[in-house]
Amino acid sequence: MVKKNKKKSCAILIIGNEILSGRTKDQNVSFLSSWLNSNLGIRIEEVRIVPDIEKTIINSVLALSKNFNYVLTTGGIGPTHDDITAKSISKAFNKKYSYNSEALDILKNYYGSKFNGPRKKMAKMPESSKLIYNPSSAAPGFVIKNVICLPGVPLILKSMVHNLKKYLRPGAKIFSTSINCQTVESKIAIQLGIIQKKYKKFVEIGSYPFFRLGKIGVSIVIRSSKKRYLHSCHKDIIRFVKNKKIKIVRGV
Amino acid sequence: MVKKNKKKSCAILIIGNEILSGRTKDQNVSFLSSWLNSNLGIRIEEVRIVPDIEKTIINSVLALSKNFNYVLTTGGIGPTHDDITAKSISKAFNKKYSYNSEALDILKNYYGSKFNGPRKKMAKMPESSKLIYNPSSAAPGFVIKNVICLPGVPLILKSMVHNLKKYLRPGAKIFSTSINCQTVESKIAIQLGIIQKKYKKFVEIGSYPFFRLGKIGVSIVIRSSKKRYLHSCHKDIIRFVKNKKIKIVRGV
Repeated sequence: MVKKNKKKSCAILIIGNEILSGRTKDQNVSFLSSWLNSNLGIRIEEVRIVPDIEKTIINSVLALSKNFNYVLTTGGIGPTHDDITAKSISKAFNKKYSYNSEALDILKNYYGSKFNGPRKKMAKMPESSKLIYNPSSAAPGFVIKNVICLPGVPLILKSMVHNLKKYLRPGAKIFSTSINCQTVESKIAIQLGIIQKKYKKFVEIGSYPFFRLGKIGVSIVIRSSKKRYLHSCHKDIIRFVKNKKIKIVRGV
Repeated sequence: MVKKNKKKSCAILIIGNEILSGRTKDQNVSFLSSWLNSNLGIRIEEVRIVPDIEKTIINSVLALSKNFNYVLTTGGIGPTHDDITAKSISKAFNKKYSYNSEALDILKNYYGSKFNGPRKKMAKMPESSKLIYNPSSAAPGFVIKNVICLPGVPLILKSMVHNLKKYLRPGAKIFSTSINCQTVESKIAIQLGIIQKKYKKFVEIGSYPFFRLGKIGVSIVIRSSKKRYLHSCHKDIIRFVKNKKIKIVRGV
């Protein structure tokens, strides 16, 4: 059994001009972050969005691969000229950029007589990569060292995450709870700071303003890998909020 | 008059645990990217999302500030303990983290008798910063060196961008056009690659699959700062698509 008490950190590298230009809104960060935490106790600690430029991809992959347990990349593994993720990562790790025979078989089988050059390109990846199977559109993702390459299309990515579980070692799940108050941040800031100090190493308290029916409110989010600290911190905040006669709002 | 022919590059640094945890979906990247390009001809070339950790903020700001003409940060300039952007950036640039007298006046005037300690904190920033006025909620953003600090709440950020224009020198606007085809990428990949090579330095061609009424399509996006190359490349692609008898779809 894998021990689950170690913090596992992960970065996401989003590769694609379309996200940087504002044409496409990224949908993968929030999905991957929630999925990784709830299924594997893995935390996203940095995200970078970079253009389809080989040198930039290489530098970003190397920096993130060094700093985090895992790096998930999204985008750039399709059949067109602007899909340069596999080639760039091959260069980053000094691996041959070559056809993976299993990926070739999968694609041949899927496309049959319609298996052409551009589709063949999707089987090209860093030598010695392992595959992440793709139940939607066949073209697999791949894993090389601690870097995991996934497609950018959210529907396809979502269908594949189950198949990457085996490449990731679980960490400690982060639990969270929130208290939504009808107040403004400046009225609770000092006491929240004091409570944060009390639970310094074990709990993370975030404060986020929201707007509802024209009124401002604050969502206090408490996160911890230790349930007992989470509950104790939650109680402290509830006690403080009630003493201050601040209304707690449900369903925000 | 400012000359507009130089490419101006910019990075965005999103500061906030709530974006990394998946709790909040970022809305600022696509807005800022479109706004900067259409109003100022400034291009976003990298985005990083980092947690509320001082050391990480310092390292990211310094790296991006060195590599790009401008860095826009979002988030972490509010009144609570987890708002550490101003303090971290002061440390990054070895500037005193102190009260800005103009910001203090603005906040005093706005809050009147309700001006308390946490609200006062919002006037604290790196010494010698210039202010970005905030017509929504008074607390100003600030500019120090080539780093521009904005709030994370999208509504407030949007209301402020007009006031940061004066700190940015315009570059060459990027024009774009797209052709939406009822086809799959692998059918157009080779020719698109050839056309991309022809316009190598002047035009950027992107290919993005989409789904519509159960059918897959491909959106070909052409981007360039030179209108004549954009039009010529557009013509080349239209000619190729029509020759191939691929249907062009409108309104995607």
